[in-house]
Amino acid sequence: MTGIRLEPPARLNMNIGEAMFTQRAIRRLKPDPIGDEELKIIMDAASKAPNGGNEQPVRFFVIRAREKIRAFGALYHEAWWAKRLEQRGWSKPEDVPKEDKVYQSAMLLADEMRDAPVVILAFSLAKGRANSVFPPVQNLLLAARALGIGSTLTTLHPKVMERVYEMFSIPGEVEFHCCIPLGYPRGRFGPTSRLPAGQTTFYDEWDHPPPWA
Amino acid sequence: MTGIRLEPPARLNMNIGEAMFTQRAIRRLKPDPIGDEELKIIMDAASKAPNGGNEQPVRFFVIRAREKIRAFGALYHEAWWAKRLEQRGWSKPEDVPKEDKVYQSAMLLADEMRDAPVVILAFSLAKGRANSVFPPVQNLLLAARALGIGSTLTTLHPKVMERVYEMFSIPGEVEFHCCIPLGYPRGRFGPTSRLPAGQTTFYDEWDHPPPWA
Repeated sequence: MTGIRLEPPARLNMNIGEAMFTQRAIRRLKPDPIGDEELKIIMDAASKAPNGGNEQPVRFFVIRAREKIRAFGALYHEAWWAKRLEQRGWSKPEDVPKEDKVYQSAMLLADEMRDAPVVILAFSLAKGRANSVFPPVQNLLLAARALGIGSTLTTLHPKVMERVYEMFSIPGEVEFHCCIPLGYPRGRFGPTSRLPAGQTTFYDEWDHPPPWA
Repeated sequence: MTGIRLEPPARLNMNIGEAMFTQRAIRRLKPDPIGDEELKIIMDAASKAPNGGNEQPVRFFVIRAREKIRAFGALYHEAWWAKRLEQRGWSKPEDVPKEDKVYQSAMLLADEMRDAPVVILAFSLAKGRANSVFPPVQNLLLAARALGIGSTLTTLHPKVMERVYEMFSIPGEVEFHCCIPLGYPRGRFGPTSRLPAGQTTFYDEWDHPPPWA
């Protein structure tokens, strides 16, 4: 598939190490709008990621209209709670442990998705192409981070999927992959907590750690 | 799941824009070895990517031993040709169009995989977790690019899968996602050709381009 070549946008000038190592999930978003200039940079970055056979099957559906984000936010809220009920048996805010900061902020995002400045849904034109969707998605998230825009990778419970497709007249053969709210952070970016890479990397034999672990 | 925090490695100091916009698939690799210092940086970067619920199901199998890469390379070669036969009806080098530079270099990689300095296979501990594998994979590829190390995202034909699992005693419940050879490039990094992001990005309605397209 043909395409165009682009120079790196001047504003994507953060060190790649800093962007990657401070790419924390940002779930508390300011209502401040995100400009089309920023969105273009972010989507251009997404477009440059590797994908299978350069077929570029990913399609990003950017929700900008306030009333559409509100309508989508109601479905996201329903989906979030449907997943909590299924996985944890939680059905109301009091069920979510107060000390679990991740779940508390994810619950808040379920309330506030309707007020996110921008929501992006990632699809592929054919089924089973996650390997060509998530490299672009990660470029998108890193480029947003480099511009100081927060985001987090979220999903949707199957319960609401049909209604999301109807709401936006999305063709049935197109596959949904993830939901990405964007906004300037109310909190700060910062280090993430992850397993040491030496525990998730094996050298030459399964379950054998690398020499530097 | 708990984890550790890390400072960004000082050597990951390339502008993120340059890394993303020059992340071309590199299929012609020099035999020069890749050090453990570089591999640690690359795998640390992979570990910092977002993943579902911070469950971190990705496992990277790094093949470093020369005789193991040789043995794997033979299976990769067989898999590459099995896929070409299935998709294109090609069974020998003369069948591959001379003017198709991508296929020519992919065919060369099928021959040369056995000589790659390092080959990394990406797995997930459970099935269906591509959304938690490919953000780390993209971090891995970008970090390699930032260190001047070339790579390309490849896959394997199902025909050889069982033998790959046997060769490395990989548990059956673990899912294979992709194969990533690493090496310093014989050619140069440079711009990629991709569809303009305005053609793969929709605003507020399906198939409606953004205002900047």
